[in-house]
Amino acid sequence: MKSENLFGIHPVREALLAGRRTIHTLYISESRGGEAKDEILALAQERGIGVQTPDAGFFRSQDRGHQGVAARVSPFKPVSLESMVKAGAEKAPLFFLLLDEINDPQNCGALIRTALCAGVGGVIMPDKRSSPLSPAVSKASAGALEHMPVARIVNLVRSMQYLKDQGVWFYGLDASAAHSVWETDLTGPAAIVVGNEGKGLRSLVRKECDQLVSIPQSGPLGSLNASVAGAVTMYEVMRQRNMSGKQKG
Amino acid sequence: MKSENLFGIHPVREALLAGRRTIHTLYISESRGGEAKDEILALAQERGIGVQTPDAGFFRSQDRGHQGVAARVSPFKPVSLESMVKAGAEKAPLFFLLLDEINDPQNCGALIRTALCAGVGGVIMPDKRSSPLSPAVSKASAGALEHMPVARIVNLVRSMQYLKDQGVWFYGLDASAAHSVWETDLTGPAAIVVGNEGKGLRSLVRKECDQLVSIPQSGPLGSLNASVAGAVTMYEVMRQRNMSGKQKG
Repeated sequence: MKSENLFGIHPVREALLAGRRTIHTLYISESRGGEAKDEILALAQERGIGVQTPDAGFFRSQDRGHQGVAARVSPFKPVSLESMVKAGAEKAPLFFLLLDEINDPQNCGALIRTALCAGVGGVIMPDKRSSPLSPAVSKASAGALEHMPVARIVNLVRSMQYLKDQGVWFYGLDASAAHSVWETDLTGPAAIVVGNEGKGLRSLVRKECDQLVSIPQSGPLGSLNASVAGAVTMYEVMRQRNMSGKQKG
Repeated sequence: MKSENLFGIHPVREALLAGRRTIHTLYISESRGGEAKDEILALAQERGIGVQTPDAGFFRSQDRGHQGVAARVSPFKPVSLESMVKAGAEKAPLFFLLLDEINDPQNCGALIRTALCAGVGGVIMPDKRSSPLSPAVSKASAGALEHMPVARIVNLVRSMQYLKDQGVWFYGLDASAAHSVWETDLTGPAAIVVGNEGKGLRSLVRKECDQLVSIPQSGPLGSLNASVAGAVTMYEVMRQRNMSGKQKG
């Protein structure tokens, strides 16, 4: 059975709290102290997970940012679109994030972190040319990945069509779009589509979007980072729903 | 006279466009090609700046992300609060960003990039325990730093008092604040205060803020990245001003 090492306080703690992965072993460095350590040890004990104190070489061989905490866990398990819709419907209107060819683990993790905070019910990513859902993504998401339902899809057009049949509207972020996110009613069932930072939305994806929306930009630069553009839009959805009383939970 | 090496396409191009630094020499790698190279070379020629093609070792010794482009330039020059207020008043209401002890160059650069796009007229940073305005910050800002007026202040309370005398209200971001950014009128002269990611706002700064505001958060994690929290708030200022017709330029 495949396994991998999650590392860092947030990913390990959130994996323990979320309970979605099998956690084989918890590793704590001898020099690690503080409240975070106590909390993680207590969670591991509750769940009957063995704790090891590996020698110094173990943590040196991990990615940076391990903070003296790691866990041997089962790989991140994507969910189906069907289950995502079912779970999302419980706190309707549906709210998804489609990441099209976001291949940088930092951007991917940052977007998933913001998505969780903004009430997004699931993240959709094409299986090809997207960042794998690696421990580095969990780290970049401050552990948000551990809680977030993520669907890895093979046929993008068919998946978008399926969600449209469930009433979801696709809003593609495009700096050149005539209508801004502020002028667009985002209170219905919605999926926000964020394209690759360098290339933007692929023409295939653009064509399938119900509406293209822009984020107004001032000044000489006019280029927001993809994860910031995504964040501003997700929060505009949350704001509109909150202000109109449409968002539950 | 002190100088440093800017690196990467965006910082070098924006430094050429902004014209705020003295640019001694432009370095282009032999293997660098494409439109960006042509644009940068044309800008350098217009400005009478010498171009060198250094040997491969030169770029290997630079920071990663150099993209085969670098420039020997004068250090970034902060501005005074007085000049920042004067320039900002031309497209009133005043709009500033106060970064309190943001010491990570990535976060600092990301915030400055978003600030430029959201119409912020100047960034204020305490001189101590803030990220230096290094080439790495310019890189992380995608060159936005080259255009942004930044004041490095020594006495924080006195500086805040000076800006308050100019009519500026300070809004401190605090996850536990009772009022959200959505409920708060941000259309007047404003400075958004973002604290250190780990520690939040210092009590000294918190005390000097006119109002503390929060960003609503959903889900089990409840912790936005500092640069995302700043982005959502700056864009909420821009949205409110735009919708109320108060933002010029």
